[in-house]
Amino acid sequence: MSIVTIIGAGVMGSAMSFPLSDNGHTVRLVGTMLDREIINHVIDTLYHPNLKRSLPNGIECHQLETLENAVTGADLVICGVSSFGVEWFSENIIPRLPPSVPILSVTKGMFNLPDGTLMSYPKFYAGKYPDRSFNAIGGPCTSYELADRDFTHICFCGQNLTKLEEMKKILETPYYNISLTTDIEGLECAVALKNAYALAVTLAVGLSKRSGDTIHYNSQAALFGQSVKEMRKLLSLFGYADENIIYGAGDLYVTVFGGRTRMIGTLLGLGHSFDEAMRELEGVTLESIVISTRVGEAVQTLINAGKADSADFPLLLHVYDIITNGATVDIPWKAF
Amino acid sequence: MSIVTIIGAGVMGSAMSFPLSDNGHTVRLVGTMLDREIINHVIDTLYHPNLKRSLPNGIECHQLETLENAVTGADLVICGVSSFGVEWFSENIIPRLPPSVPILSVTKGMFNLPDGTLMSYPKFYAGKYPDRSFNAIGGPCTSYELADRDFTHICFCGQNLTKLEEMKKILETPYYNISLTTDIEGLECAVALKNAYALAVTLAVGLSKRSGDTIHYNSQAALFGQSVKEMRKLLSLFGYADENIIYGAGDLYVTVFGGRTRMIGTLLGLGHSFDEAMRELEGVTLESIVISTRVGEAVQTLINAGKADSADFPLLLHVYDIITNGATVDIPWKAF
Repeated sequence: MSIVTIIGAGVMGSAMSFPLSDNGHTVRLVGTMLDREIINHVIDTLYHPNLKRSLPNGIECHQLETLENAVTGADLVICGVSSFGVEWFSENIIPRLPPSVPILSVTKGMFNLPDGTLMSYPKFYAGKYPDRSFNAIGGPCTSYELADRDFTHICFCGQNLTKLEEMKKILETPYYNISLTTDIEGLECAVALKNAYALAVTLAVGLSKRSGDTIHYNSQAALFGQSVKEMRKLLSLFGYADENIIYGAGDLYVTVFGGRTRMIGTLLGLGHSFDEAMRELEGVTLESIVISTRVGEAVQTLINAGKADSADFPLLLHVYDIITNGATVDIPWKAF
Repeated sequence: MSIVTIIGAGVMGSAMSFPLSDNGHTVRLVGTMLDREIINHVIDTLYHPNLKRSLPNGIECHQLETLENAVTGADLVICGVSSFGVEWFSENIIPRLPPSVPILSVTKGMFNLPDGTLMSYPKFYAGKYPDRSFNAIGGPCTSYELADRDFTHICFCGQNLTKLEEMKKILETPYYNISLTTDIEGLECAVALKNAYALAVTLAVGLSKRSGDTIHYNSQAALFGQSVKEMRKLLSLFGYADENIIYGAGDLYVTVFGGRTRMIGTLLGLGHSFDEAMRELEGVTLESIVISTRVGEAVQTLINAGKADSADFPLLLHVYDIITNGATVDIPWKAF
């Protein structure tokens, strides 16, 4: 059995404790400074107030001050911070980890560089710490359902297939099914793109609610199809294998139904301005907005440089226009 | 303005009257022998008992006996029969139509040939009547939402782009958006495949209901991603352009939520045998079963001939096994 330390006690990081515990491993959960209350709560009652489930018996909880104890002897560190915590994790946490321990990140998203290219978080970390092993999880997985041990199928990516096999052995259960790939950038790009497109698809939820309470699916499906079309073109534009669309499409599917991104897409589709929608959702972490903006900026940069054609991405550019210029929702159907 | 005759007064054929009527065309709806009651009902009250909406004012209704009157002077005939009516339409109806009138079919599905290839319905018709123009509609569209004038985006396919442009001009409205393609077999294959895979994805609905009433999405999304993966491989196996996956994925999305296929997938996922599920749904037209069987047979033929690898299609073959051998649901997660 192994010792696995999860850093970041948000819903996704915490949910990873279920397959780990079911496989008999020692699980240590370390809260960031944002998770102080959560950790106290779990120490007292095992109940995670945001995940709304009790975490597995036997889980060891740590505040950030005892990080060094929590990672002593660890065979694997899972990084459970959100997109907003990536730089913080890189600067403040990685130096405090044993040099040889592999790191598996659940954070989805990418950075956009000034030249219009994208960079995955594992690549970002590896740029700073070239001697460490950075890996990541992509594919459709909501934390609540993982905690409920519902069937899930995701993909681990990393440079070293042997290391990936070891991580798979630690984490795979009958309900948590794992594929492996060494195409880090391709997988991470595909699953980051779904954030932008989940917002696009859920615009249709709000649009159909304008005329009544019934949820319609023709319009969602049309936007879903257009999303798959544009995501494939984006993967190819950024130089990644088209094959990754299978994780992008699955991840898009679960994100459309999954929660926060759907809330903002619906509000926008109902006719709220972007500023109004953001005010209404104050306090909710909206990674989708960050990622949509980054991908939009990257594509706009490539269009300006003559390296991409705006006619290929009408839906993405509309979402980008809504977020950055406050444009009202007006799906460019004729451009599909 | 044009005269358009719809043959087949099922929900999809009848719903086509909405964009036609909104564009000011003369619409004639002809019931098959199965639609006699529906036509009588619409003549009396305009209300379509299966579509559960009143059809547009001014629609002309015909029983099959007056087909010749209904197609006199028609600029376009829309074929609204189901998969089960394709041979009947070919043998009994086409000879009664004016030779020059183009035919636009809403029927989704394909025939499988003994050599393991598939054949679209337009190609099947054209084989019998080489001098006529056969076209078809693919892409996500449920009849109820079309009748509600919800945003829809589909694709017309046919051999002649000029003819397709004319049909698009007749039918396109602000809510009914139309792309065009001359890749008939590719589009028709992609949207036929979604029938088999909608059944596969909705197995997860039943599986998650076993443990409670909450619908889970991780498992649906995993099956959705695997479906996209296998559908792409099937398109390539049958020799069609991969690009058509965008209609397949959109159509899969709407079918998962759309009704009858979801009912059988859910029952199977809940643990009912195929025979039990079919008994429970007696009287419901289940094109998905027909199409799943045909596609499964085609792939099995190609596997037996050494032209396809069973490892590429674990999900399709499992669905085929459930339908043809009464296998119990046991998703082959590890084979994904």
